[in-house]
Amino acid sequence: MQLHEPARFPLGFRCASRNIGLKPSAKDLALFVSDVDATAAAVFTRNQFPGAPVILGRETMRGATLRGIIANSKVSNVATGETGLQNARRMAAAAAREIGTTPDRVLVSSTGIIGIPLPIDRIEKGIQGMASELQGDPIMGAEGIMTTDTHPKAMSASVGSATITWIAKGSGMIEPNMATMLAYIFTDARLAAATLDTMLRAAVHVSLNMLSVDSDTSTSDTCAILANGMAGDVDELAFASALTTGCIRLAEILARDGEGATRLLRVIVAGAKDEADARRVAKSLVNSPLIKTMVNGADPNIGRILMAIGKCVGCSIVPGSTSASVNGFEVIRQGTRVDFDDEVVRRALTTEAVDIVVELGVGGATATAYGCDLSTGYITENAAYYSS
Amino acid sequence: MQLHEPARFPLGFRCASRNIGLKPSAKDLALFVSDVDATAAAVFTRNQFPGAPVILGRETMRGATLRGIIANSKVSNVATGETGLQNARRMAAAAAREIGTTPDRVLVSSTGIIGIPLPIDRIEKGIQGMASELQGDPIMGAEGIMTTDTHPKAMSASVGSATITWIAKGSGMIEPNMATMLAYIFTDARLAAATLDTMLRAAVHVSLNMLSVDSDTSTSDTCAILANGMAGDVDELAFASALTTGCIRLAEILARDGEGATRLLRVIVAGAKDEADARRVAKSLVNSPLIKTMVNGADPNIGRILMAIGKCVGCSIVPGSTSASVNGFEVIRQGTRVDFDDEVVRRALTTEAVDIVVELGVGGATATAYGCDLSTGYITENAAYYSS
Repeated sequence: MQLHEPARFPLGFRCASRNIGLKPSAKDLALFVSDVDATAAAVFTRNQFPGAPVILGRETMRGATLRGIIANSKVSNVATGETGLQNARRMAAAAAREIGTTPDRVLVSSTGIIGIPLPIDRIEKGIQGMASELQGDPIMGAEGIMTTDTHPKAMSASVGSATITWIAKGSGMIEPNMATMLAYIFTDARLAAATLDTMLRAAVHVSLNMLSVDSDTSTSDTCAILANGMAGDVDELAFASALTTGCIRLAEILARDGEGATRLLRVIVAGAKDEADARRVAKSLVNSPLIKTMVNGADPNIGRILMAIGKCVGCSIVPGSTSASVNGFEVIRQGTRVDFDDEVVRRALTTEAVDIVVELGVGGATATAYGCDLSTGYITENAAYYSS
Repeated sequence: MQLHEPARFPLGFRCASRNIGLKPSAKDLALFVSDVDATAAAVFTRNQFPGAPVILGRETMRGATLRGIIANSKVSNVATGETGLQNARRMAAAAAREIGTTPDRVLVSSTGIIGIPLPIDRIEKGIQGMASELQGDPIMGAEGIMTTDTHPKAMSASVGSATITWIAKGSGMIEPNMATMLAYIFTDARLAAATLDTMLRAAVHVSLNMLSVDSDTSTSDTCAILANGMAGDVDELAFASALTTGCIRLAEILARDGEGATRLLRVIVAGAKDEADARRVAKSLVNSPLIKTMVNGADPNIGRILMAIGKCVGCSIVPGSTSASVNGFEVIRQGTRVDFDDEVVRRALTTEAVDIVVELGVGGATATAYGCDLSTGYITENAAYYSS
């Protein structure tokens, strides 16, 4: 897999984005289009209050075929009842008219505040004319779906003659559960829908589903992949591998730009009894406010690592066989704190990416979770998100 | 149940506390003594890295008889290996010598930083002479176990001719799981050990086990009750009721003084399928960083309430039957945000105690969880707890 800098689209994909007045001046509407029908797969939030676009999206994905994606930011169209669902349908229909396809081939996403009616008239009007603005820079589309993200997120890579492009937003209310925030993946490889679905689920399982900014699971999470086949067949193993690698990289990018985040926190758990244990322990550390503040302050209070492992009641944990390191520096050996020099560990915690490796010593399973520190920036941002 | 202001001890209980140099000047060692043997029950942390005092405490409680409790703050004696356990035994023995009993009748607690060796020589020396300082004000003992608590916590109440006194510390690393932070309960009622154990577990189940400051479960949680019988028999139903009421009040006091907390947050869930669902949804809201920051900023972003309910995957949630209110003001009706005046809800969120009531509308089970808001104070405190 070869990464491209800057990111570019696979053959036959383009996008456009606009400000239509949902936000004061930033872009708030994005359209992604394939020149031909693409096989498609998607995973959605497991939150039990799915937004109207997610409800509609599950229906749309039954066809496993997409021509485009229309997404707005600022208003999430969640908890808006039957009117919300009608508005999501109107949004799909407006985009379908604009790009010359049927509404069942357009995936709709909305992200932003929960419980506010979708300004559908403004969106229908805003979509008009976007087809003529379609262009080849993925960043343009990424800008249209940002909420509290500090930068647009797009990347791309080659697999054989095919290209894969990832576009996403993240930031807060991020602990995807069998899904993710908005993440769109485009490829010109030719792949059957069932294959695509299997590959997407496998990739998301170890990447976006192991990401947590704040343990809160959004009602709008959507991760979709479109394969338009314009680059022909591809080595499926190489493609699956590149897809997974890219999704992991995307999880890291989203974690790094978590609300208020100043550092990327990666927790690698090895030696677990089974994968479920490994994932639970890794998530426990990456979600612990006391681990996150320790990383934020580069405070070598590493006893908290044991606390966050030990609170996984039901997991196979043997204190005497548990070890841990921070950026390669051993801090826990066989359940006991190593008598280290505070300053050395403080320095290890001061890097932009902090890797905590936990060896449970009871089996052979591993997992990695992706998160970030917890800073005062998260609080100030979220104590006035609605009002500001 | 009649509360006493100020708190006082039941017949035959006294305490003392000292600064022995673990902290610069604040008290850091506390001794609680009953003049006669007391029947006793206790619950401990379910964290899988229990501290040495918890390991020893489980052994001690097999006798179901206590004469005293010795507790230090600043160093928790967790992740300290075999030496840590020996040090906990030495601490029990030193206190037993001082008050004229055997080590198996002294419960030991240590609270503070994880992974630092217990300064046992200093503690043994510090215990000497404390028996002559025993006195009747519970606040004195409460002061000796404080860590980041902003005030000592003690209260007492009458049940018939008997008195119950609660002494506790809390603040951070607080989501007790079948246990709590350090909480000691003293009574002069005469109660069998098995009765006491049943009553304690029932009381903790709905109070301290429904408390969460930050979702992190301490390695030192201990809640013990001592009944020395000096006031004779008591109406057991009235006693159990007073014990539960007092433990709920204690959970509220601990939540109010959570690290950085500016508000008490109570989440009352009704209409759940069963108690497990009700408890899980209540805990989900009380632990959600986005709910906690919403309360901190009095920001009427109430769609987050649905998000935090909906992320309880596996619970019986029916969007169309879910309603919610904030301090009596309805904000969600049948799964949809009520079209309310932002300023009214903002005011409802500005009170010192914020009650979020969730009606799930699928059954008859209820639960209440106790927590607090999440402020920048929590971050600054915990980003430098070890170093400062």
